Amino acid sequence: AAIPVGILTVSDACSRGQADDKSGPALRQLLAGAGGRWAVVATRVVGDSQAAIAQAVGAWTQQAECRLVVVCGGTGVAAGDVTVAALEGLFAKRLPALATAMVVGSLRITPMAALSQVAAGVINQSIVVAVPGSPKGATENLQQILAVLPHAVDCAATGRSGTRHLHG
Amino acid sequence: AAIPVGILTVSDACSRGQADDKSGPALRQLLAGAGGRWAVVATRVVGDSQAAIAQAVGAWTQQAECRLVVVCGGTGVAAGDVTVAALEGLFAKRLPALATAMVVGSLRITPMAALSQVAAGVINQSIVVAVPGSPKGATENLQQILAVLPHAVDCAATGRSGTRHLHG
Amino acid sequence: AAIPVGILTVSDACSRGQADDKSGPALRQLLAGAGGRWAVVATRVVGDSQAAIAQAVGAWTQQAECRLVVVCGGTGVAAGDVTVAALEGLFAKRLPALATAMVVGSLRITPMAALSQVAAGVINQSIVVAVPGSPKGATENLQQILAVLPHAVDCAATGRSGTRHLHG
Ligand code: NA
Repeated sequence: AAIPVGILTVSDACSRGQADDKSGPALRQLLAGAGGRWAVVATRVVGDSQAAIAQAVGAWTQQAECRLVVVCGGTGVAAGDVTVAALEGLFAKRLPALATAMVVGSLRITPMAALSQVAAGVINQSIVVAVPGSPKGATENLQQILAVLPHAVDCAATGRSGTRHLHG
Repeated sequence: AAIPVGILTVSDACSRGQADDKSGPALRQLLAGAGGRWAVVATRVVGDSQAAIAQAVGAWTQQAECRLVVVCGGTGVAAGDVTVAALEGLFAKRLPALATAMVVGSLRITPMAALSQVAAGVINQSIVVAVPGSPKGATENLQQILAVLPHAVDCAATGRSGTRHLHG
Repeated sequence: AAIPVGILTVSDACSRGQADDKSGPALRQLLAGAGGRWAVVATRVVGDSQAAIAQAVGAWTQQAECRLVVVCGGTGVAAGDVTVAALEGLFAKRLPALATAMVVGSLRITPMAALSQVAAGVINQSIVVAVPGSPKGATENLQQILAVLPHAVDCAATGRSGTRHLHG
């Protein structure tokens, strides 16, 4: 069965209707190209607000409606970029190597990847990943880790490490 | 003189006798092949318990019985993987670049390296490193940083940076 | 207009006059070679003291005297290396991907890069970066990210993400 995914776009401009959300659709297209592994079951656009981000991620993960949530936008250097600050308080477990894998892969494409606050972790037994807000940055980062995310989702959902990682 | 090392295997299955610890011996063999730099003076298997991990690491580092402790296992995505949570509270200093070096090197071997919560830091003037629980993951990660660990051990033990890193 | 930079050298030996600060001048030379983008407007040498580091960084960033502060030294494994501990409490936002970019690039030059506690983030709307204390380590690390720092400075100063990263 396909894994249910939520895509949360964080952007003041898009949430006010001053700009079109191009990153959410770009991420949807990337996920659709992954051989039927993923089913996008929820999308939303919120402003650059910690409360709005936390509310959406919490709602999607509490009942396991989404086993993967991709949050795009709000990961920049500016004070108004609060996505990671919002997620920090929600992570049951941080997965810094997933973030490192996104950064290392994206740095091969552009040195600007050094300026994104990407992050990944487990919230309510679901995997939550934060990627940059531009369509290019969002898809380039997610692409670096997409192949290993089904296994991550499985471990987070079942609470077991899976045979591949079983000790011994 | 050889540097005293402790290898702590974290695994419910191994601690209950339901599986053999293959990672501890694999790490021992890797350390033995490093030209006599390391002497494994302590090994133990504990379950996936923060208290048990903290107790073992504390005991081995408090009297400098071990100048390096390698903790293998309990670094996965599942809720039951608590090794890094156990170590976070003990680190006097975190060494995230050591973790980055393990991740970057291991990603060249397998994209699954993105799913491990590897970590490194100083506890009681000893270096403590957390690596994945599979023999392959454990040795691949440690191998990435083994050459620089003697210098790290030296700095942590003496409290001085050493000539190589002396300012100026 | 050139971006105002402060270079803070952290070294007990240098602050006591027992050694010459070679890293501060090396960093100044690196910045001078960047086509007039940077103007070093402040330099100081302090001992390995969290209070002294925090005081200098705070003073330089509070009135935006420096839009970039490069702190060199005090990033090692030893207990006396306290630069990152001093900065942790000051960061309004951490920029771990900048640190990852420094580590990944520096690891290509030397495996010893795994032993530095490099860090980066925003303090008082300025960018603050911690690099190793040796002239070689300091310049090698800063070089990895120098090209993207003007954009980082701009985002931190204006509080806006800039067109390049605008969502959509
Ligand atoms: Na140093």
